[in-house]
Amino acid sequence: MEFPLLNTINDPADLRRLPRTELRRVADELRAFVVESVSKTGGHFGSNLGTVELTVALHYVYNTPHDRLVWDVGHQTYPHKILTGRRDRMGTLRQLGGISGFPRRDESEYDTFGTGHSSTSISAAHGMAMAARLKGEDRRAVAIIGDGSMTAGMAFEALNNAGVSHGGLMGDLLVILNDNDMSISPPVGALNKYLARLMSGSFYSAAREGAKSVLKNTPFYEFARRFEEHTKGMVVPGTIFEEFGFNYVGPIDGHDLDALVPMLENLREKRGPQFLHIITRKGAGYKLAEADPVKYHAASGKFDPAVGFVKPATPPKLSFTQVFGDWLCDMAEQDQRLVGITPAMREGSGMVEFHKRFPERYYDVGIAEQHSVTFAAGLACEGLKPVVAIYSTFLQRAYDQLIHDVAIQNLPVVFALDRAGLVGADGATHAGNYDIAFTRCIPNMAVLTPSDEDECRQALYTAFQHSGPATVRYPRGAGAGVVPRKLMSALPWGRGEIRRRSSVGVGTGKRIALLAFGTVLHPALVAGERLDATVVNMRFVKPLDEALVAEIARTHDAIVTIEDGCVMGGAGSAVSESLHAAGIDIPVLQLGLPDEFVEHGDPAKLMAACGLDAAGLEASITHRFVDRAASPLRAAND
Amino acid sequence: MEFPLLNTINDPADLRRLPRTELRRVADELRAFVVESVSKTGGHFGSNLGTVELTVALHYVYNTPHDRLVWDVGHQTYPHKILTGRRDRMGTLRQLGGISGFPRRDESEYDTFGTGHSSTSISAAHGMAMAARLKGEDRRAVAIIGDGSMTAGMAFEALNNAGVSHGGLMGDLLVILNDNDMSISPPVGALNKYLARLMSGSFYSAAREGAKSVLKNTPFYEFARRFEEHTKGMVVPGTIFEEFGFNYVGPIDGHDLDALVPMLENLREKRGPQFLHIITRKGAGYKLAEADPVKYHAASGKFDPAVGFVKPATPPKLSFTQVFGDWLCDMAEQDQRLVGITPAMREGSGMVEFHKRFPERYYDVGIAEQHSVTFAAGLACEGLKPVVAIYSTFLQRAYDQLIHDVAIQNLPVVFALDRAGLVGADGATHAGNYDIAFTRCIPNMAVLTPSDEDECRQALYTAFQHSGPATVRYPRGAGAGVVPRKLMSALPWGRGEIRRRSSVGVGTGKRIALLAFGTVLHPALVAGERLDATVVNMRFVKPLDEALVAEIARTHDAIVTIEDGCVMGGAGSAVSESLHAAGIDIPVLQLGLPDEFVEHGDPAKLMAACGLDAAGLEASITHRFVDRAASPLRAAND
Repeated sequence: MEFPLLNTINDPADLRRLPRTELRRVADELRAFVVESVSKTGGHFGSNLGTVELTVALHYVYNTPHDRLVWDVGHQTYPHKILTGRRDRMGTLRQLGGISGFPRRDESEYDTFGTGHSSTSISAAHGMAMAARLKGEDRRAVAIIGDGSMTAGMAFEALNNAGVSHGGLMGDLLVILNDNDMSISPPVGALNKYLARLMSGSFYSAAREGAKSVLKNTPFYEFARRFEEHTKGMVVPGTIFEEFGFNYVGPIDGHDLDALVPMLENLREKRGPQFLHIITRKGAGYKLAEADPVKYHAASGKFDPAVGFVKPATPPKLSFTQVFGDWLCDMAEQDQRLVGITPAMREGSGMVEFHKRFPERYYDVGIAEQHSVTFAAGLACEGLKPVVAIYSTFLQRAYDQLIHDVAIQNLPVVFALDRAGLVGADGATHAGNYDIAFTRCIPNMAVLTPSDEDECRQALYTAFQHSGPATVRYPRGAGAGVVPRKLMSALPWGRGEIRRRSSVGVGTGKRIALLAFGTVLHPALVAGERLDATVVNMRFVKPLDEALVAEIARTHDAIVTIEDGCVMGGAGSAVSESLHAAGIDIPVLQLGLPDEFVEHGDPAKLMAACGLDAAGLEASITHRFVDRAASPLRAAND
Repeated sequence: MEFPLLNTINDPADLRRLPRTELRRVADELRAFVVESVSKTGGHFGSNLGTVELTVALHYVYNTPHDRLVWDVGHQTYPHKILTGRRDRMGTLRQLGGISGFPRRDESEYDTFGTGHSSTSISAAHGMAMAARLKGEDRRAVAIIGDGSMTAGMAFEALNNAGVSHGGLMGDLLVILNDNDMSISPPVGALNKYLARLMSGSFYSAAREGAKSVLKNTPFYEFARRFEEHTKGMVVPGTIFEEFGFNYVGPIDGHDLDALVPMLENLREKRGPQFLHIITRKGAGYKLAEADPVKYHAASGKFDPAVGFVKPATPPKLSFTQVFGDWLCDMAEQDQRLVGITPAMREGSGMVEFHKRFPERYYDVGIAEQHSVTFAAGLACEGLKPVVAIYSTFLQRAYDQLIHDVAIQNLPVVFALDRAGLVGADGATHAGNYDIAFTRCIPNMAVLTPSDEDECRQALYTAFQHSGPATVRYPRGAGAGVVPRKLMSALPWGRGEIRRRSSVGVGTGKRIALLAFGTVLHPALVAGERLDATVVNMRFVKPLDEALVAEIARTHDAIVTIEDGCVMGGAGSAVSESLHAAGIDIPVLQLGLPDEFVEHGDPAKLMAACGLDAAGLEASITHRFVDRAASPLRAAND
């Protein structure tokens, strides 16, 4: 494919030198480039096709990078990356050493704020706008936020704060609501219809359709419906955004450059908080994606643009997500008290089937992690048994609720922590590296780290039987391939199991024990074989099997702890604390994720880079305990 | 004082047996009881006087404890406690072994949900209401929430979720907005005035007064003002709460039992989400408190009801909060880039003077911790230097923002963590026990633990000079009494200091080093003197002074780590990780807060109970390293 005009644009200044009449061609080439590029690398798809014209218009009108664009979530920034000097690097997207799938401040001066999680853009852009006022700089800040992201409480907090003056100053902030509804009503003129389109065309008409029923539980759904009812009879058509102090305009067609560009030119001249509501289509310009935006949200790998996404010939391996989904249905069948909660991650968390089979016991609360956890606490107070399915990285959003509402009250809520450990292509923003550290320090909280698919099912069952709060953490994707048994039986509470015994005689000075937490058990078993080490599947970070740890310490010369979480404060430190509390003194090597943000890339390569594959484990252990003749296993500190 | 009627009420059933005409007398005695009780114990005052009639009416109308009352924050529940069988225990309020100042599920079946932090009540009550529907129980759930608590994003998330149906079911939930405005307008009849009173009488009229300017930055302020503008011209007076799917009634006078009781009786019969807006006065019925509600928010100790609160004859010792407030002003004077941010804690965080002197650089963002942190990140992106003053316990509300928006981008934001460690009378919900564990596991994050007032000032200065994010944690109240030097100079980054050297000869087998983090340095010095141990003021949890730790390990026979944070994942584990990483093997004893929720009580007594006073430290160390003849310091594990 040829991109004659796009190839001349190496930064937005090049774009701004073009006559406005050329922008349509730029947008068309840009869209084709996105299709071709993502078809080779995989990555987010529909959202990027939806923001092509908006991106062109923003960089054309705003003086970037002097003016600041903050993209909420940031998975819709491929067109932005292509226009800001990264066209040639799109082939490296989301790969180790390549460019990120999200904005990154260290990647480009045009990426003014790193994102990944939702609903942060208004807060950040408001900060930038206020900074410009304080510093007396003539600068605009723009937050581009989707209708989904607008549902989190944080976005409300930010809207409210941005719409008032601070010490007499107000920020020159534009919030663009990118309302990527899938079915735009044709434009109409009458006020009634305008209002109907304003709200129903934007927030909730699609929710009437079965396919987008997920929108139904977002905070805006009922709000919008009722608001429409009230406002239809009003003479002055205020919107809720005006109530927050913003000057509201819209909705306009976000694919119509002739509407977008003049509107943005007008808004750029206005001072104070502005709000532009645009309507776009996910997958715009690519027929297959327009027809099935859910399917075309993201490409897991390469595809032929002419054919579209096709099912792989061999079905993918059973993922932990599916293991969870299957367990949830089976458990719900056994126990009427089970209720399932997700903060807007029905598909990602494997709850589609549960929703279908148990609609009354299924709660998608929207992007509202804080509420999801305290709501679960309320249900648990009444004797129900809530299971909150949440990614490790998103549980960070509900940390206080975990402590204050669940743990202090010792309520039996199960947290199914998907995407624990390194997550691969999504990179540092989505990393599930910290949950062991931040959950195990909470009193009453049990922390389970199953090592394979079957153990994950049994661990979920075990946590569900427990009388207090528990997290069960498991990584993205597939595991060792241990097919879950249908039968569910509780794991012995707080007990690990020895999976391999070293044949080295006690006292010969090199009897090493590997204590593995989670799926790293499998590389640990390989390394253990090579090193003739004892290998323990710890299963529980908390309660830790202190008796087993003490027993291992008594019968070995060194302990190695292995986890796919941060070393700082992690499971290895739990082992170490236990040894210290028991007054046991033995050399310990703590292996896990390093104290740095691990970038995007292939998970297996990243694990190897962190030394957590079998070879890496072997090398670290050998280096510490086998090679160092000068460093005896005990009393190394003289 | 006599309480003839109140003395006959041992539970709400007794109350419900009274004729409605007696309720006024009950309320009057209850109010007098609260005044007398708090005058003897200290505790929250104004809010409890404001909820007397509401509490009487709720327990009279609702079938408690079958129906569920959830009190937001919960510091207004003294009347509730008195009516639910705890009248005789009010003298033990907030004291070690006594009843809590907040609702507690393990204290009474009438305390359906434990609170302390704000804005959780709607989520929890919604959970209870949905549970009743799922279980087919005829039960009501009531959330009582103040106008302040309503400003957090979490309350919005909950309102939205509670106003829609789930799998065809809606909860029978009543949300009572306890709008404790200080100046109720007289009741009026006309629609315009009604609406003006609805919103202006409730949310923001008081904000026009200087005294309540803090309200100005809450999300509702501008919202309400604009809403009023729009709605005044409307024929149908919808409120924002109706937009969320609630049936709204109000506002009514929350001190008028003749209005409250019939209204609640009506609402109790209604199904689905109901919203009642009541107006109360903080301090109602106690003239001094009505006149100065800020002063009478809480009593720090005993007072004479006839005289009111009086300033103590001797001024209290300089608190860490004041040290911070003074530093903030001095630093702001030196550096134009400094901006100060508080999530609704101007007084508590010591920012009154800063607000007065630097209004343009002061941001009270309301109860909006998430926004506060990401807003700071946005400011920092533009070269400003934000200082976020936040209690340790409330930083839990912004944990994801700390990681995702500040740390990943390595932005220079200083977090001044007040109320770190045990907080005393407020108890487990407010404990600052976890911040060392949950902050130090975040890459890029520096964690400073100053040991006294002067070092706190210097640590803040040091953190402010740092190019990345840093937390400076300090406890509630006063410290060792080291008067801060006016001069600010940076502490050596990541370096501890030896404060006392053991005179025991190396190799004699009992050379012990105490590594103290924070204000526990002072008991450590006392214990170190008694034990002739080396004592180190570590100052930094991160970056840890690894060279010093290694040096100490080489020259000592045992290390004791001491911190006023949780042992699990805390500073002691940082020391231990460092030793393991260096391959150094030495006995370590980790002393800190236990893995349990520490209840309310006198801080000094609690610290002693946790073994963190000098005597406790000495006892633990002696027990481990001195008494145990059979347990040599090295190679204990044979």
